[in-house]
Amino acid sequence: MGKNILVAHGGGPTAVINTSLQGVVEAARASGQVDRIYAARFGAEGILKGDLIDLTNVPASTIARLSITPASAIGSCRRKLTDADYPTVIETLKKFSIDCFFYNGGNDSMDTCNKVSKLAQAKGLDVKVIGIPKTMDNDLDVTDHCPGFGSAGRYAAESACELALDASGLPIHVVVLELMGRNAGWVTAASALAARATDCEVLTYLPEVPVDEDRMLADIEKAWARGKGLLVTVSEGICGLDGKPLASTGIVDGFGHTIPGGTAQHVTDAIIQKLGIKSRAEKPGLLGRAAIPYASRVDREEAYAVGKYAVEMALKGESDYMVAIDAHRGEKYSFDLFLAPLSQVANVEKKFPLEWIVDGNRIDDRFFDYAMPLMMESVPQYAILR
Amino acid sequence: MGKNILVAHGGGPTAVINTSLQGVVEAARASGQVDRIYAARFGAEGILKGDLIDLTNVPASTIARLSITPASAIGSCRRKLTDADYPTVIETLKKFSIDCFFYNGGNDSMDTCNKVSKLAQAKGLDVKVIGIPKTMDNDLDVTDHCPGFGSAGRYAAESACELALDASGLPIHVVVLELMGRNAGWVTAASALAARATDCEVLTYLPEVPVDEDRMLADIEKAWARGKGLLVTVSEGICGLDGKPLASTGIVDGFGHTIPGGTAQHVTDAIIQKLGIKSRAEKPGLLGRAAIPYASRVDREEAYAVGKYAVEMALKGESDYMVAIDAHRGEKYSFDLFLAPLSQVANVEKKFPLEWIVDGNRIDDRFFDYAMPLMMESVPQYAILR
Repeated sequence: MGKNILVAHGGGPTAVINTSLQGVVEAARASGQVDRIYAARFGAEGILKGDLIDLTNVPASTIARLSITPASAIGSCRRKLTDADYPTVIETLKKFSIDCFFYNGGNDSMDTCNKVSKLAQAKGLDVKVIGIPKTMDNDLDVTDHCPGFGSAGRYAAESACELALDASGLPIHVVVLELMGRNAGWVTAASALAARATDCEVLTYLPEVPVDEDRMLADIEKAWARGKGLLVTVSEGICGLDGKPLASTGIVDGFGHTIPGGTAQHVTDAIIQKLGIKSRAEKPGLLGRAAIPYASRVDREEAYAVGKYAVEMALKGESDYMVAIDAHRGEKYSFDLFLAPLSQVANVEKKFPLEWIVDGNRIDDRFFDYAMPLMMESVPQYAILR
Repeated sequence: MGKNILVAHGGGPTAVINTSLQGVVEAARASGQVDRIYAARFGAEGILKGDLIDLTNVPASTIARLSITPASAIGSCRRKLTDADYPTVIETLKKFSIDCFFYNGGNDSMDTCNKVSKLAQAKGLDVKVIGIPKTMDNDLDVTDHCPGFGSAGRYAAESACELALDASGLPIHVVVLELMGRNAGWVTAASALAARATDCEVLTYLPEVPVDEDRMLADIEKAWARGKGLLVTVSEGICGLDGKPLASTGIVDGFGHTIPGGTAQHVTDAIIQKLGIKSRAEKPGLLGRAAIPYASRVDREEAYAVGKYAVEMALKGESDYMVAIDAHRGEKYSFDLFLAPLSQVANVEKKFPLEWIVDGNRIDDRFFDYAMPLMMESVPQYAILR
């Protein structure tokens, strides 16, 4: 008799989370060892309710379309499991005779994964537990980078270039672009590509460096005065010198994190009111993780590979690990996968290196050495004739 | 001796305005009749200053990259020419011995084009004047549609699908998407594709129908209660029953129009405060006209064709016209071009048909019969497994 597997999504989706799901399903089918392929409907919610989707007989042509499907095809949630929930999780695993459990998510999900694994062991349940990494924020430790980051980075980088060219080709206002990333500036840093690929002035602010608003406005005024147009890119989570976010929605999410937002509008209002310069704020928000046309080729390949590898390793009997990526940035980019103990990655946040932030508003080339191969083949070559 | 031509951009760029420029340059080169190819640096500003860019010897490989270059490669402006300016325009045309003048723009630009043409005639100057249509707003009259709309429509349609799947795959908040279009709802209407291509509830509000905010909130509450997730798409220019925009930046542009904005945030705040439902506002703003990965194939073809046709007609001696598109929506989409008198199109605004708006927040299939071939091949086929 074959094995039964269960895959679940946790937290915010990325442009390639469904590609990892495709990797899981296709590897399970290819193995010849899997009986039933289950997915949790809406992540932890589905596990707690015993509400699983049976993907065993979903046509291969539908599974193939997962890579062009944004968000979570099986549903996700932001419910943080409590100690009281774990016995129910174990019951669902028992009820559906699950042999391998794959949790696809970020920091919080790896913590969940780790706890499920430990509890299953304590209860004598033979379930192989493997975490599949996913976060556009790129803040998981041990792995070189996270699936989802390359696409979110490409979104930030190309969108910033596009807005920068709009701003320099019709220089009637300062354009302020707000990008996702509450505590980690990885995605926003990618927007600094606009400083390299366009003729526009670009200033970039990450959450890692507290912002002196007076100095920020002085820098904006100076850059605007050079007359080439100006794009200011800000992470949604940037804070003032007092350590508090410049702007906040006041909304608290299911994990207890306050949701920042409105940062670009805040900066725009200051530019208009304090500098008397026209300005407009753009906030693509969730599009930064959902926009399929910006999905990166390498990111998609890696997202598929980590899903496939998780299944292969679990079927070999490995457990209690997250799949991690080892990157080789040579002439031609390549990568290997390895297993990192869940306890090593759970709840650890990888921060953006402070030494890659220059004068508080520019990004060092070392970031682009790191990130470009994950995002796109090369710097876009625009035809700028003006 | 060959002829000299001048091309200028007016107003906001589109994702394909540079493709029209490519059409102009390549047709001028192919004709064998053109001596010098000039572009006005930053539109009317460049014409008034006599600041022209000589494109005659720009490499063909650079010109070819115009189609992947967002915004205006030669620069544009929002300066509305006054009666006092026109003699200066005529002087520039004389100084550079311009035989053909092409103005690529929307309503305001066609008015400028018309006035230049009339004044040149009055002064006995032999300049052929042809308008090249461009506006993402799709509000130019006579032509079936405008180059720029197909790409902006595709941006609105696919982005809305992507956000809708994010909203239904992780249904923790109402997502409100603000789209460009101050007075005309063509672009925002395209976002209603999300109601057809996803499993999410979708409500769409265009500027053509005054919004009863109480009813809007009641409809939002009802749609949210169905538990499938909810995307609300709003045009930046929607007005309340009093005829005033729901939200405004308070900024007045160079054409004297007040810039609307913040509409999605306004609706989001009401959802949170009056309904007690979590909500977030997304406003990609200028990305809706600048995002190259969403540029439509048909839109790009047509943008190229109108530029090319303008040159061919002017070299044949035609003048005082705008290039217009006749569309054939059969089994396979095709189009023809024709010349429309400038006086017929200048300052006329084509409104979205009211009968295509159902119950104030849904869009009739007739819009999609009209718009789909301009935006994309077919409705996206996502893999939705939940």
